[in-house]
Amino acid sequence: MTKTASIGPEDIRRVLSHLRTRNPLVQCITNYVAMNYAANVLLAADASPAMIHAAEEAGDFAAIAGALTVNIGTLSPAWAEGMHAAVTGAQTAGRPWVLDPVAHFATPYRAKVAADLLVRQPRILRGNASEILAFTGAESAGRGVDSGDSVAVATTAARSLAARHGCVVVVTGAEDYVTDGHRAATVCGGSPLMGKVTAMGCGLTALMGAVVAVEDDAFAAAVAGCALFAEAGERAAREARGPGSMAWRFLDALAATGPEAVRSDRVRVS
Amino acid sequence: MTKTASIGPEDIRRVLSHLRTRNPLVQCITNYVAMNYAANVLLAADASPAMIHAAEEAGDFAAIAGALTVNIGTLSPAWAEGMHAAVTGAQTAGRPWVLDPVAHFATPYRAKVAADLLVRQPRILRGNASEILAFTGAESAGRGVDSGDSVAVATTAARSLAARHGCVVVVTGAEDYVTDGHRAATVCGGSPLMGKVTAMGCGLTALMGAVVAVEDDAFAAAVAGCALFAEAGERAAREARGPGSMAWRFLDALAATGPEAVRSDRVRVS
Amino acid sequence: MTKTASIGPEDIRRVLSHLRTRNPLVQCITNYVAMNYAANVLLAADASPAMIHAAEEAGDFAAIAGALTVNIGTLSPAWAEGMHAAVTGAQTAGRPWVLDPVAHFATPYRAKVAADLLVRQPRILRGNASEILAFTGAESAGRGVDSGDSVAVATTAARSLAARHGCVVVVTGAEDYVTDGHRAATVCGGSPLMGKVTAMGCGLTALMGAVVAVEDDAFAAAVAGCALFAEAGERAAREARGPGSMAWRFLDALAATGPEAVRSDRVRVS
Repeated sequence: MTKTASIGPEDIRRVLSHLRTRNPLVQCITNYVAMNYAANVLLAADASPAMIHAAEEAGDFAAIAGALTVNIGTLSPAWAEGMHAAVTGAQTAGRPWVLDPVAHFATPYRAKVAADLLVRQPRILRGNASEILAFTGAESAGRGVDSGDSVAVATTAARSLAARHGCVVVVTGAEDYVTDGHRAATVCGGSPLMGKVTAMGCGLTALMGAVVAVEDDAFAAAVAGCALFAEAGERAAREARGPGSMAWRFLDALAATGPEAVRSDRVRVS
Repeated sequence: MTKTASIGPEDIRRVLSHLRTRNPLVQCITNYVAMNYAANVLLAADASPAMIHAAEEAGDFAAIAGALTVNIGTLSPAWAEGMHAAVTGAQTAGRPWVLDPVAHFATPYRAKVAADLLVRQPRILRGNASEILAFTGAESAGRGVDSGDSVAVATTAARSLAARHGCVVVVTGAEDYVTDGHRAATVCGGSPLMGKVTAMGCGLTALMGAVVAVEDDAFAAAVAGCALFAEAGERAAREARGPGSMAWRFLDALAATGPEAVRSDRVRVS
Repeated sequence: MTKTASIGPEDIRRVLSHLRTRNPLVQCITNYVAMNYAANVLLAADASPAMIHAAEEAGDFAAIAGALTVNIGTLSPAWAEGMHAAVTGAQTAGRPWVLDPVAHFATPYRAKVAADLLVRQPRILRGNASEILAFTGAESAGRGVDSGDSVAVATTAARSLAARHGCVVVVTGAEDYVTDGHRAATVCGGSPLMGKVTAMGCGLTALMGAVVAVEDDAFAAAVAGCALFAEAGERAAREARGPGSMAWRFLDALAATGPEAVRSDRVRVS
């Protein structure tokens, strides 16, 4: 399969099947809010999380992990240094990495750190619509860490970013939009309750690390990861009574959702 | 309404109604233990949390947030620097901030950081009885992060601190005591199970940020926030089977408790 | 009872009874992933957690805590400095401390920090089989933070380490193995679901701090703590539907499991 071939349900099943059987080791440099939940998301998906961030060892560890994810949520200079060390380690070892530029539009410091990371060739860039729009210089309605924009307004920006940086861009929201600049897919499902549980998006970023560790076609990997997340979210929401029960029911649902359980009509490839 | 007017049930409903409709953006500098739970408390209350702490950006962000909360639980010099930068940013922009001086009596370092923050005019100071007593030089029975004193013994200290620092003081425990030095209120409700869930108090501090972001009368805001917390805690405890289920049931109950659902007899104004 | 006397069910009940009635204050320097869960584990066991890590105060606090636990999961130089300050404070005050050398085999930096801590005489060393093996220079199959080795292959290494460092070594896995170099015990129970919940092992380390704070015989303390953990884990797993529900059901079960509820046949002393 070439990088620009379209993808079908069998590709998604393949990715999700490899996710379950290969137990990829994923190094996550993520924010303090999300650390626990992101680790539990990875365990529920049969991946193995490792939260190792210090510049003194992040690069060494990235060389033995299957993939690296970098999330700038609770940023500081020492952590930014660790992020760059980890990216260097991952790239030297030929491992993919994933960037989650949380609220990078919110302050000049954050914008600079995110911009410096984006040019280091992440395999996948995942953000909400406001975060993706802000990278193109477009005005966004983002406020704090929440998106003020709908996914639909960010698709052009996503395609343009993907083409420019040679990465897959994942815009998440009520529906997710995934593109590598050539191919594009929309993934539907999930639940509005997911937006009331902190670290859900950071958990998806961690999962992007797990799928890209087991699949060379990062577009297929990202679509499969989004589809699994949406399936588990929709199932969990059926029984959840609020955000508290949603958080743990999502983990139960994620662990129980095998490759065959993901509805193929969640994904529309264009 | 002047700052010294008494408050009634309609004031509490107004605050809680604004909390639900205005979705205030609250910057929380809080401890590592509490980050996730405090963010989920804010989301369940329809506020928008942002955990941004580094001195490089904390001040810039405070200027765009509706309020700032500062909790010294897992303190370090770099974080203390970020706390001061955030307070400066909040005050320059005219935004209120809330101080939670976790266990400030436990070590000389912690006492110094808390004292330096207290003189920077927080709008609300929230602590347990031991933490409030310790600010007045009174002997307290505090040990570690837990209060060894009952709320009743701290009411005089609370009134005195409120008058001296021009802030609202919230002493939390089996009953909560709220005072601005002139007015005072007691809020009853909640459940002993809340003391078995870590970060509950830090979650209330985060909620204090949300209510003070939508209400100029910080006394009314604090009383309303305590009443909502007590109501949700009591409801959650009815179905909880232990501390594990209490943690998530509290979030479900908080999300489900609208302004009209808070029993007005929880609050006794004096 | 001398240090080398064997232990029986009455010793385990004594430790667990003291745990419930003495509410030991336990200072935990642990990783960001585990902080919240470890604090909740301690609260469910009627201990009082305090997460205080900075070099500026960690030593002062260790002198007032009943015990200290040090877990190197999300290591950095500033934290390593705080760990050493805390150990110094604990030792000066004659308080026991517990070491959890998370994945110390994974990078040279981590290996150095763990080795420097190990020689400072922890009362209890807790790790998975790969972590224990790696201290003896043996080849291990550890990968990331997960053990690639079974407990059985690490028993000789554990005895040797215990004798050399004068500490109790706890190797956790499907069964736990506890030894002080002279005595040894196996503790069975728990559930495979515990391995799908992040920070379970770190929570056990925190509990080791609580039991060693109330019991001079660290071997009896460690066995009792492991037995309580295994009992609660097995009970929780009966009702859990996946890793999400396991996490909170474990806390409910732990809070509900009194000294008499721990099955004595979980422990085989050799």
